[in-house]
Amino acid sequence: MPVPLTKESEVDVLVIGAGPSGLMGANALRKAGVNVRIVDQRPQRVAAGQADGIQPRTMEVLQSYGLAERLLREGNRMYMCAFYNPGPDGGIICTGRAPDISAPTARYPHETTLHQGGIEAIFLDSMASMGLEVERPVVPSLIEVSKDEAELKDPQAHPVKVVLKYLDVPEGKIDTEVVRAKFVVGTDGAHSWVRKSCDIVMEGEQTDYIWGVVDMFYETDFPDIRNRCAIHSANGSCMVIPRENEIVRLYAQLSDTDVVDANGRVDKTKMGPQQLLEVANKSLYPYKISSKGEVDWWTIYIIGQRVASKFSINERVFIAGDACHTHSPKAGQGMNASMNDTHNLAWKLAHVLRGWADMSLLKTYEFERRKYAQDLITFDKRFSALFSGKPRTEENQGGVSHEEFLATFQTFGGFSSGVGVHYQPSAIVNPEYQSFARNLIVGQRVPPRVFVRAADAWPLDIQDLLPSDARFKILLFAGDIVDPAQSERVRQLAEEMGRPEGFLKRFSKGSVETMFEVLTIASGDKFKVITTPVPSIFRSHWSKLFVDDQDMFKRAGGGGYEYFGVDPRGAIVVVRPDGYVGMVTPFEQHKAIDQYFASFMAA
Amino acid sequence: MPVPLTKESEVDVLVIGAGPSGLMGANALRKAGVNVRIVDQRPQRVAAGQADGIQPRTMEVLQSYGLAERLLREGNRMYMCAFYNPGPDGGIICTGRAPDISAPTARYPHETTLHQGGIEAIFLDSMASMGLEVERPVVPSLIEVSKDEAELKDPQAHPVKVVLKYLDVPEGKIDTEVVRAKFVVGTDGAHSWVRKSCDIVMEGEQTDYIWGVVDMFYETDFPDIRNRCAIHSANGSCMVIPRENEIVRLYAQLSDTDVVDANGRVDKTKMGPQQLLEVANKSLYPYKISSKGEVDWWTIYIIGQRVASKFSINERVFIAGDACHTHSPKAGQGMNASMNDTHNLAWKLAHVLRGWADMSLLKTYEFERRKYAQDLITFDKRFSALFSGKPRTEENQGGVSHEEFLATFQTFGGFSSGVGVHYQPSAIVNPEYQSFARNLIVGQRVPPRVFVRAADAWPLDIQDLLPSDARFKILLFAGDIVDPAQSERVRQLAEEMGRPEGFLKRFSKGSVETMFEVLTIASGDKFKVITTPVPSIFRSHWSKLFVDDQDMFKRAGGGGYEYFGVDPRGAIVVVRPDGYVGMVTPFEQHKAIDQYFASFMAA
Repeated sequence: MPVPLTKESEVDVLVIGAGPSGLMGANALRKAGVNVRIVDQRPQRVAAGQADGIQPRTMEVLQSYGLAERLLREGNRMYMCAFYNPGPDGGIICTGRAPDISAPTARYPHETTLHQGGIEAIFLDSMASMGLEVERPVVPSLIEVSKDEAELKDPQAHPVKVVLKYLDVPEGKIDTEVVRAKFVVGTDGAHSWVRKSCDIVMEGEQTDYIWGVVDMFYETDFPDIRNRCAIHSANGSCMVIPRENEIVRLYAQLSDTDVVDANGRVDKTKMGPQQLLEVANKSLYPYKISSKGEVDWWTIYIIGQRVASKFSINERVFIAGDACHTHSPKAGQGMNASMNDTHNLAWKLAHVLRGWADMSLLKTYEFERRKYAQDLITFDKRFSALFSGKPRTEENQGGVSHEEFLATFQTFGGFSSGVGVHYQPSAIVNPEYQSFARNLIVGQRVPPRVFVRAADAWPLDIQDLLPSDARFKILLFAGDIVDPAQSERVRQLAEEMGRPEGFLKRFSKGSVETMFEVLTIASGDKFKVITTPVPSIFRSHWSKLFVDDQDMFKRAGGGGYEYFGVDPRGAIVVVRPDGYVGMVTPFEQHKAIDQYFASFMAA
Repeated sequence: MPVPLTKESEVDVLVIGAGPSGLMGANALRKAGVNVRIVDQRPQRVAAGQADGIQPRTMEVLQSYGLAERLLREGNRMYMCAFYNPGPDGGIICTGRAPDISAPTARYPHETTLHQGGIEAIFLDSMASMGLEVERPVVPSLIEVSKDEAELKDPQAHPVKVVLKYLDVPEGKIDTEVVRAKFVVGTDGAHSWVRKSCDIVMEGEQTDYIWGVVDMFYETDFPDIRNRCAIHSANGSCMVIPRENEIVRLYAQLSDTDVVDANGRVDKTKMGPQQLLEVANKSLYPYKISSKGEVDWWTIYIIGQRVASKFSINERVFIAGDACHTHSPKAGQGMNASMNDTHNLAWKLAHVLRGWADMSLLKTYEFERRKYAQDLITFDKRFSALFSGKPRTEENQGGVSHEEFLATFQTFGGFSSGVGVHYQPSAIVNPEYQSFARNLIVGQRVPPRVFVRAADAWPLDIQDLLPSDARFKILLFAGDIVDPAQSERVRQLAEEMGRPEGFLKRFSKGSVETMFEVLTIASGDKFKVITTPVPSIFRSHWSKLFVDDQDMFKRAGGGGYEYFGVDPRGAIVVVRPDGYVGMVTPFEQHKAIDQYFASFMAA
């Protein structure tokens, strides 16, 4: 009998495509204990070039997975942005310098740049430590979603069939696998096979702007070479992105004559790194830049600004990252949006797969991320037009002025840094009682702030208390518990919230801590709070009680209630597993949280 | 012919003993490119217990080798110290809480605790990454230093002969090696074989204080269990040291009847962990503590406070760490002093071995570290006496009051944190022109302070600009270089310091950067300094120019000239390779630095 050349298997989640978006998703799912596989068609990981900019919010997200430290160590940081415009004698002059990030609440007040392979390596090593490797080179050749309604409704069914082909298998060995998956995540890039196979169309169009990009070790007399620079010259626009290891990335705007062939298509053979550098040098005049040795990487592209018509098929196949939205690289958003897509999706899949949440939770992925992708394109269009537009000069009064560019740059600071992402009301975003913690904005991420751990005066950033561990966090702002009246309110609240019908008991499987992390933050004096009794439901361990007070050396901490706009009488804040505020209530409305969870948790 | 069972070899430095002191030394030497070996008699690394407290200064030193991050991640941190004394009804009450560290300039304002094996593992992994492993189990059986004067004077000679025995070699294989070393470092503990073989005696004596120590997972109702506690009770003294992974270390004072035999010697068989816990519980009354499962580690000891009569034989054999000084563990100094011994010695050996420095440089090791060891014992005697003394009560008015204990604790803050270590004037410590940078105290370590890198506005701590890379750092505080007059002074200084007879050219082998790192710190405005020209000798690379200004987000930086007491007209500061200030001069006295280096550098 001949050996069968096909094997069959089952998996909970199959991720197709191991770029930043797929890796973020696979890593997060594996960390949550999900049975996940990830495949990629490339035989090797990316070695140079590609996307390279990590925004402040993405760094916060990476920190929540324990991955920021290495990226901070290996990457370059951009703190400053310099703006150049045409000077009186034809060359460019610096018209201003400003913080590269215009988001005062950013925990990491800089962009971090590292070649895409370096970023991917951080995920690959993290996954390897959990026993998960990317299977490559592997291409999917078929994807089918069951039409059986009952099967589609059952989170434990395997309604998605994918056929995988192994590319480097010796003749006569198994080279085909039929995988039956509960869920598939397509993170296979701008030309996504998953998207096309599912007949999802991209909406939007390409612009007329053509750009070239080159990464290189350099020699130059340009003083701002280690800052991000937006350069508008009479000879075209250019952008400087300083990178790790003395590398710089230059973006140069190209004209049709540089690269477009007779049929109106970009012809890459008309351009090379030396020609690109010539274009960049024209923009940089009177400064000069040249490459030390061979360039590290280069490419040219036309800016496309498009969003997929939908992000999933029956909440069984999802697409994420470049597979569902493409942008100009100018604002450095693409990779960040892509990683945040799967960060948003992973915990939802984990909750459904564990049987905790209803399938309906998965609808919030498209609801939240497609809206964001559309907003991003609105921003990108404005930014790209300003960037690619002609500068304002004596002769061209209709051009883009420095002031106009800077104002746009700063207005969109919260957006381009990622910290301003604001998810709209849904089952998991309920702003009804927002006023009880005015600056913990429901639908936004919890901003960094230092609180002092009561038991040992350790100052800790609240973001580090909210790791991406697939659990909801309940922040009990308990008020001044040294005051007997407030202490009694907290005791009563504990009694009520501890009842079997309260969400803490009703929805947690096994112990409360399996699904919820309850952290209590008292206002007041650390020397008094340390010995103040707190009901055990609000302090399951000595490490769960914090004080809004300065640390022992007065270097950080204190004023957190005011900063977060928390009512002095206290508030309960629900933080989603991805670090976004889900709901705020006063003590008296704690039953509204029961309803919040009841709306999407499994009965 | 029978196989010879002895081999012979040569090495530049042989380190005997792989505890914290030996590992710090071997790691530092290897990092400096020195041909070094390290042997230890123990077949395995330490698994639990032993020394465990890292002081703030030691953490700064570890950071200078790139090793702090992991220790901070794995260890526990003590920020707060609580003081307990007898209350009115017989039990202890908390009489105060204070910062655990009383050194405002500490970069890491806490002690860090981790079992000794965890600390050693950080060094072992660092060494392994450089191809250096501890050879074990190996015991030295003979050490001889040549009497040949010419040989002793020649830094490239191998005047020390050591015979090593390999303990786990199969019968018939080579088990003996004769090593000829340029230098030997004995870091083989309180019962040092190297010290005894060299007939070096310990001076000082043991105290009458007997203590027991136990590490364990615990259950307790004691509110300060996660803080360092100094407990004086009517029933004896006790100390609490919270540790990593929910472990606590308890020190309990024992009475003679607990452990001393008829001959006045400590009999460990009279005591066990349960008896120790009983003693501790008497001190802690009315609170209770018990062990969860078996204790992790325990021991008893009599406090010895002794210093070796000398720290070297002809600057060819050195002893360091417990081999030359022992202290009470109460102040948590032993391991810190030990690691700082070899941190002090390593760069000096590296400079001599490279042929850069004269052998006389090595004399400063004993000069600096023996004085420190003696000071440490003075401190330790006072601290131990206070700690072991009876508390002041109604009945015992001569006892130790809380106020007296706290005052001592805080007075010695700089000392016990290690940041106050002050080396006395010598060839490498010249305080003549101290007034030009009043708070960069010659003989003390450079305190942390953030400056902003001119080229990219990256805020960096000055300590991170002073890595332990065996190079002298020259900090040029250049003043307000945007001012043309000051810029001209800097230009003239560059011209003078750049002459062949100036130290930068005269003593550096090959390029200046091989031996010196020159960093320039301008006062003024980061937006102006970025484009201000600086002579290339003061800015060999774009990353070497800094500004004393706030970072882009006003979170750190600025006011550094005032903080360091630097003359606004500028100053030159010589920082030794170990991070201690060696000399300060005004611009006009730069030739005094030529003399400073001439006094110990090879001609």
